[in-house]
Amino acid sequence: MIKYGNSATEKNLGGGVCRKILAFGEEIMAVEVSFEEGAVGSVHSHPHSQISYVLEGRFEARIGGEVKEISQGDSYYTEPDMPHGVVCLEKGKLLDVFTPMRMDFLS
Amino acid sequence: MIKYGNSATEKNLGGGVCRKILAFGEEIMAVEVSFEEGAVGSVHSHPHSQISYVLEGRFEARIGGEVKEISQGDSYYTEPDMPHGVVCLEKGKLLDVFTPMRMDFLS
Repeated sequence: MIKYGNSATEKNLGGGVCRKILAFGEEIMAVEVSFEEGAVGSVHSHPHSQISYVLEGRFEARIGGEVKEISQGDSYYTEPDMPHGVVCLEKGKLLDVFTPMRMDFLS
Repeated sequence: MIKYGNSATEKNLGGGVCRKILAFGEEIMAVEVSFEEGAVGSVHSHPHSQISYVLEGRFEARIGGEVKEISQGDSYYTEPDMPHGVVCLEKGKLLDVFTPMRMDFLS
């Protein structure tokens, strides 16, 4: 299955955050999330493992008890059920990849 | 676990291809692969599911029987054991994410 970033459907999540579902299969799903400066991805958790990669911009990431500033080319791993979130310091985009896929994103 | 793109170790695989292991856990691993123009990621397969995302450049991707030209922002999903490979048409970089992690990349 090949999915094209430009033709993927974008969903406005409000608060300056938009989500675009990219390629996925049962075991893995890629999602592009864009943030306006100051937008917040609230701290939350889920049973999926996750890797986030900074495509553009600058973020303050909270993963577990750790707080780090991350920018283009940085990535982090979030284990299942670990609380994590970001605050966007400079307008940008994250690529979030989950295993297994996020069924909840399709509804 | 947070890994920084710039401090990750880069491995020269030869033929104009370099690989940098980024964040990972047991279930998921992110890898940045850079290609010189004309460099080839030969068609191969593995039991891991994979998503590839084009960070920069332009590639001809072969996934299963399908051949597609992909560029920045495009992504594709490769199911377990499906033959896949790329030819780099314009110097660039892929972000490859695997589930489970690639133990073989650590040795």
